[in-house]
Amino acid sequence: MVPRYTRPAMAAIWAPANRYRIWFEIEALAAEGMARLGEVPEQAARDIRTRGDAALAAFSDEDLARIDAIEAETRHDVIAFLTWLAEKIGPESRFVHLGMTSSDVLDTCFAVQLTQAADLLLEDVDAVLAALKRRAFEHKHTLTIGRSHAIHAEPTSFGLKLAGHYAEFARNRERLLVARAEIATCAISGAVGTFAHVDPRVEEFVADRLGLIPEPVSTQVIPRDRHAAFFCTLAVIASGIERLAVEVRHLQRSEVREVEEFFHPGQKGSSAMPHKRNPVLSENLTGLARLVRSHVVPALENVALWHERDISHSSVERNIGPDATLGLDFALFRLAGMMEKLVIYPEQMLTNLESLGGVVHSGEVLLELARAGISREDAYRIVQRNAMATWTTLGTDGSRSFRQNLDADPEVVGRVSPDLLDRATNAMRHLSALDASFNRVFGEPGPVVA
Amino acid sequence: MVPRYTRPAMAAIWAPANRYRIWFEIEALAAEGMARLGEVPEQAARDIRTRGDAALAAFSDEDLARIDAIEAETRHDVIAFLTWLAEKIGPESRFVHLGMTSSDVLDTCFAVQLTQAADLLLEDVDAVLAALKRRAFEHKHTLTIGRSHAIHAEPTSFGLKLAGHYAEFARNRERLLVARAEIATCAISGAVGTFAHVDPRVEEFVADRLGLIPEPVSTQVIPRDRHAAFFCTLAVIASGIERLAVEVRHLQRSEVREVEEFFHPGQKGSSAMPHKRNPVLSENLTGLARLVRSHVVPALENVALWHERDISHSSVERNIGPDATLGLDFALFRLAGMMEKLVIYPEQMLTNLESLGGVVHSGEVLLELARAGISREDAYRIVQRNAMATWTTLGTDGSRSFRQNLDADPEVVGRVSPDLLDRATNAMRHLSALDASFNRVFGEPGPVVA
Amino acid sequence: MVPRYTRPAMAAIWAPANRYRIWFEIEALAAEGMARLGEVPEQAARDIRTRGDAALAAFSDEDLARIDAIEAETRHDVIAFLTWLAEKIGPESRFVHLGMTSSDVLDTCFAVQLTQAADLLLEDVDAVLAALKRRAFEHKHTLTIGRSHAIHAEPTSFGLKLAGHYAEFARNRERLLVARAEIATCAISGAVGTFAHVDPRVEEFVADRLGLIPEPVSTQVIPRDRHAAFFCTLAVIASGIERLAVEVRHLQRSEVREVEEFFHPGQKGSSAMPHKRNPVLSENLTGLARLVRSHVVPALENVALWHERDISHSSVERNIGPDATLGLDFALFRLAGMMEKLVIYPEQMLTNLESLGGVVHSGEVLLELARAGISREDAYRIVQRNAMATWTTLGTDGSRSFRQNLDADPEVVGRVSPDLLDRATNAMRHLSALDASFNRVFGEPGPVVA
Amino acid sequence: MVPRYTRPAMAAIWAPANRYRIWFEIEALAAEGMARLGEVPEQAARDIRTRGDAALAAFSDEDLARIDAIEAETRHDVIAFLTWLAEKIGPESRFVHLGMTSSDVLDTCFAVQLTQAADLLLEDVDAVLAALKRRAFEHKHTLTIGRSHAIHAEPTSFGLKLAGHYAEFARNRERLLVARAEIATCAISGAVGTFAHVDPRVEEFVADRLGLIPEPVSTQVIPRDRHAAFFCTLAVIASGIERLAVEVRHLQRSEVREVEEFFHPGQKGSSAMPHKRNPVLSENLTGLARLVRSHVVPALENVALWHERDISHSSVERNIGPDATLGLDFALFRLAGMMEKLVIYPEQMLTNLESLGGVVHSGEVLLELARAGISREDAYRIVQRNAMATWTTLGTDGSRSFRQNLDADPEVVGRVSPDLLDRATNAMRHLSALDASFNRVFGEPGPVVA
Repeated sequence: MVPRYTRPAMAAIWAPANRYRIWFEIEALAAEGMARLGEVPEQAARDIRTRGDAALAAFSDEDLARIDAIEAETRHDVIAFLTWLAEKIGPESRFVHLGMTSSDVLDTCFAVQLTQAADLLLEDVDAVLAALKRRAFEHKHTLTIGRSHAIHAEPTSFGLKLAGHYAEFARNRERLLVARAEIATCAISGAVGTFAHVDPRVEEFVADRLGLIPEPVSTQVIPRDRHAAFFCTLAVIASGIERLAVEVRHLQRSEVREVEEFFHPGQKGSSAMPHKRNPVLSENLTGLARLVRSHVVPALENVALWHERDISHSSVERNIGPDATLGLDFALFRLAGMMEKLVIYPEQMLTNLESLGGVVHSGEVLLELARAGISREDAYRIVQRNAMATWTTLGTDGSRSFRQNLDADPEVVGRVSPDLLDRATNAMRHLSALDASFNRVFGEPGPVVA
Repeated sequence: MVPRYTRPAMAAIWAPANRYRIWFEIEALAAEGMARLGEVPEQAARDIRTRGDAALAAFSDEDLARIDAIEAETRHDVIAFLTWLAEKIGPESRFVHLGMTSSDVLDTCFAVQLTQAADLLLEDVDAVLAALKRRAFEHKHTLTIGRSHAIHAEPTSFGLKLAGHYAEFARNRERLLVARAEIATCAISGAVGTFAHVDPRVEEFVADRLGLIPEPVSTQVIPRDRHAAFFCTLAVIASGIERLAVEVRHLQRSEVREVEEFFHPGQKGSSAMPHKRNPVLSENLTGLARLVRSHVVPALENVALWHERDISHSSVERNIGPDATLGLDFALFRLAGMMEKLVIYPEQMLTNLESLGGVVHSGEVLLELARAGISREDAYRIVQRNAMATWTTLGTDGSRSFRQNLDADPEVVGRVSPDLLDRATNAMRHLSALDASFNRVFGEPGPVVA
Repeated sequence: MVPRYTRPAMAAIWAPANRYRIWFEIEALAAEGMARLGEVPEQAARDIRTRGDAALAAFSDEDLARIDAIEAETRHDVIAFLTWLAEKIGPESRFVHLGMTSSDVLDTCFAVQLTQAADLLLEDVDAVLAALKRRAFEHKHTLTIGRSHAIHAEPTSFGLKLAGHYAEFARNRERLLVARAEIATCAISGAVGTFAHVDPRVEEFVADRLGLIPEPVSTQVIPRDRHAAFFCTLAVIASGIERLAVEVRHLQRSEVREVEEFFHPGQKGSSAMPHKRNPVLSENLTGLARLVRSHVVPALENVALWHERDISHSSVERNIGPDATLGLDFALFRLAGMMEKLVIYPEQMLTNLESLGGVVHSGEVLLELARAGISREDAYRIVQRNAMATWTTLGTDGSRSFRQNLDADPEVVGRVSPDLLDRATNAMRHLSALDASFNRVFGEPGPVVA
Repeated sequence: MVPRYTRPAMAAIWAPANRYRIWFEIEALAAEGMARLGEVPEQAARDIRTRGDAALAAFSDEDLARIDAIEAETRHDVIAFLTWLAEKIGPESRFVHLGMTSSDVLDTCFAVQLTQAADLLLEDVDAVLAALKRRAFEHKHTLTIGRSHAIHAEPTSFGLKLAGHYAEFARNRERLLVARAEIATCAISGAVGTFAHVDPRVEEFVADRLGLIPEPVSTQVIPRDRHAAFFCTLAVIASGIERLAVEVRHLQRSEVREVEEFFHPGQKGSSAMPHKRNPVLSENLTGLARLVRSHVVPALENVALWHERDISHSSVERNIGPDATLGLDFALFRLAGMMEKLVIYPEQMLTNLESLGGVVHSGEVLLELARAGISREDAYRIVQRNAMATWTTLGTDGSRSFRQNLDADPEVVGRVSPDLLDRATNAMRHLSALDASFNRVFGEPGPVVA
């Protein structure tokens, strides 16, 4: 992920210093676990912990360079780290990594990093939820036109739109918790997962201390279906971001102008057209969603590793691990800020709602005709006729509203009273069930028909 | 999905007859729910139920043709169905679909179809689990070589391999249950989800009777993040199928021959080479996994529908709904059968395990050297030297086993006793922790280090 | 591909009858090629041709059932066909398939089917091009607002928009020709491509007669990079369809109403809202684009077949071969018709263009200020100030046009003459270079600056 | 792309310094083009060139920081650069970017960067081709077993395998040239592509000087179908890398050992198992292929920008532009080196070829039986019977070779002479058509049957 879309806290998770810190933690815990079983001298485990802690606390660019130099020779990153660590720990280092294999360290570390990343993402989602909830209640009774096919359909409330997105992000939060649990496992099981050289209780000890659960069967690696499920979840969340971003982009277009992204003082929308104020944040979110989605397929292709493991997944994960979490972190943060500051124009919403001469009430009028005993087919024909008559004269001198046309239609007059037509063409009636929806999303579910 | 990969029960879910049956069920339930609220005459609701049930029970190709003919005129599938239904029900049909929108029917129907499909897939996964469990216990103590990078690593048990796949499919079962719950929602909320023309309690009634839950906020449609999550889950499962399929393909290759797909009497492996017996089932599963995976991206792209809905998702779902569930159903069924009948050659496994002259024991010998007080680096050097000496003479007249080389190494002799070397080079020691792993997968978890 | 999106001519290509016809053609040609080399008796080759032609000409459902029955026994589709063919041909059938392998037939047949499909697609693209060209010239001088970020930018011509799409489809036509050439190869090279049992000249003969070129090195199969490139091209074309579809969807939205898909008499837009006329064709095209795109990844995953081949690609291609070509064929056909009949509203385009009070001319005014010697930074500030003043009062009682604001700005007055402001705020000036663009697309390129 | 998979020359293309260098070049050329048309004073164009060249030549981290600071204020990268440039150029800067829009600079720059990247990739492909050609001729006559379904099929030559991969990379080279041409276009056409403020001849001049062609119709941007096609091509090439990588991985597996990646002195294959020498390069290539493939979908999703452009593509391209070209550059370079140094074991190939007791000759024996007048069905039955008898006793005390079994089969003896059986079971016969294949790939095509 390019720096432009990178936030520091998430970047720190993927920095070498954090990785080495976690690697050491795993090794130190493993030694401590073995010490409890008498397989390693207790003093050795304490020395490993003390000296390693000190070395990591003082970790510098020189250490980084030293590890890189060893790796250039051995072509193996874990061996390079262990060699460096041995230099710091001294002879007791022979009790480090005892009976373990590189993947024990790598995969358990990846699990820790992904849970750290998931925790940040959960905070991000919470910020999105908070923004959506605040704005949803703020605009609970703001009338706006609902659109299907981008064509005016029926009135709704802008707050209800936001409540729907809130509900989606609440689902995304649940999914993220499940995804976090998916990848929060630990493997200290040796070369092919048989515990031939290390007691399963060591794995259980390390897992417990790291807040992970032991992987039921690791081969050499933690099975990659877990990671595939994790990256799928990030992609689902990214697509939810895209849905809201696309909504904002639509509502900001010149002909709609119902909302506008906050425009910073000093910001320039275009080098050539000084009048421009563009929805660049939501467009950017659309692009970021494409990126996060793109990690799903390689993550799925990583599942079918050969036998007890091959290493094809490694280059994939070195990239998509950071890229997907950095991209989603940035996108969620941007989304929360964008929604917090979104400029909303209720008057323009009302103007647009009324711009089609009232044909948006055709559905309710249809029902009134039906209630008046007119057959569904006839009612549909009557309503469509009057709606089209309104539609085709929109903006012309001879324009007549839907209601005007209905009032002049002999098939309507005398069968549906003006009062009923008043009620049927009143936008406010579309807000009547708002509480039920809001209760479902933010409160308790309503009563079920017995 | 082409017929070749289609099983009848899953195909029936996606057949027009089932779709119309569900559409009617939704309409009939909605009328009954409205009758409870006094919005529809109780007798009308009963008539709708009775006459509709009769019409659907007698549903024939003529009905299908009639609906198609109406759709050719109206270009709207739900209206076509309702028109046909009205012909069957008579005047009470004016109480059908009252205040509802097409998507109420379409999306709730899709939810029912996907839950039906999920139920079949759960049965399929159970069959896979049963086969894997049986074979895992059958071969719990069958020694085989574990491989990383497709290079012999250390011995393991063939049963443990299968237990690992069992654990993955047990996870897949859990995921499928979650995915089923994701899409098991009902929307009867009208044109833009405001319940302007239909009481929310009607939705709750229909949902309850169909075994669904009411969608907290439907726009015009049930939000597509649910479906995206569902298809992602199918793709994760498909990738798990691929992992096992790739394992079988590897193990059947001519140089390995540790397993073989059952070869039917009369089956021909090749038109040109009569000697061929090919792992065509597992290869086929690999291809089917690619297909099921391919549905993830369009499902994710479906999430960001415009405003309260556009209909771009429809053509996607008309294809991937059947294709993904049919493909996965077929693949799981084939996998279960393949694993049930898989011919397993323990002797060949042993032959292969021993074919590298014992270098596969290098890890444990390394540990013995370390236990004997030799530094990790020296021990690694000693073991690698002897392993390479074995490796490079494999299959030559001057071949010497790893043990022979160790016995002649002055850095080993006198520091590690022959008894310890015997133990270190005994493959059976790799089975010592089998019960712990099997308990985790099939039984109770083992004790945790306190 | 579901029948709803299937056209008969493309479906016929993928029907069993066409496949068997091509299989026979390959076998008959191979026998004739061998006869020329003296490897098969000339009379035998003639008998194979005559009797086979007769059998295929009379091909019935019974034949289909017979082949299926044999395949159920042999589990091998080519052997099943050859067995049926032998029943028709008699003893000379022993000269059929001589030294060949199944993939020789399957892959060469797939090449023929894909070239047939490509030819249909080329016709489809030509229809799109014809529609776009006609409408582009029809609306060459139709003023409309150009939009970036969905915000009004500067005026353009609706014909130029269409010319841009024409140029893209002209590129797509070229790509399709290249893609057609990619997959138009023939393999008659035996089990692992060594021509061990069949002379390379036979392959060259068959290729020549089928309008293919011999594959330089087939393994057992034609290498799948060719097919991957082919399906990638279909996806690029599908994405081009999506671009135009999205344009139409935007332009038809209620607030824009610059174009409208043709609405058939009798068509119903919504079961609940009789006023609706929705851009369902372009939405459908958006969905179909997602489907065609989804075939790219499995096609790419098919490339890395194991060794001289495995059969994992087969199930993929049995599906995506028909699905991608059927889907694209349907989409292109629908697109051509949609563009032919698209209802275009030039007055509404003009209304929209003028709806922002003239701020869309800010870029040219900026240049005029610069020409008047004002620094770029100052000019930008002046223009942005006046544009924003216009923007923020749009639709209010105190609204003032961009020109009115400029006329009252002391930093403008006296520095840029009213005449120059007239010219700068005249939308027609944006059509001045139309010929250059149209020449590039439809005619000869213009002169280059020497 | 993480540094581990990044080579310096490709990284330099994507570094800010190169981007700003190209941005300036475009601006300077545009001013020069305008000067030729008299729209800009000639001296101004010269000053822009001279002072800008000097500023770029002296470009330092301070300049970078200055640009970043301006962008932090304006939130627009091109405006930030232009402001910095104006500081360097002085008053003549008012002739910079005259009548242009940001995308004119951004998109033309991206085109230049992608052509630079394509040129590096072409060099990389040439290195792969050179390695493959050398090794193909070196092993033209090295017998090895051809495998379908990973099961021994018939003998082939290892050189022919490599020739097949050479042919694929030769195709990839052609595709890359086409892809390079796809994206080598220039746009200097203004805000919505109408040339309203800039003469088309300026675009033609800039294009000519940059080695690009003018984009026939740019909207605000160069249409993204070009880039989609480009990234698709990279993915096809990546999949070709994967195919060869998978071949090497298979051939290096412990049971096959026909080839081995070069193992550096000092390299460690495993931290736990000193005997390991793993095909880590080819596994890494497999992973990199997944990454490069993953860029296809977002590139395709970028095509359908809204109207004359939105900016959703930008974040995508900022990532996949570098990532795809860096990843592919690294992968191709690694592949070339891997193939140059690949250790090949002809003796082991022969051992494996013979390991199935000669059943790999079943195809030719089948033909001999047919030539002896035995019906195809009978011949198949006879050969399969003897092949299976050989197969099932492989490695047992009672093992009998395919030839031994044939010699004892009463249906064979007396009908096919020992001489013919000798010829049919001689692996060398599979090399007889090698020249024809090599000529097709490396030389002139062979003669066609008249």
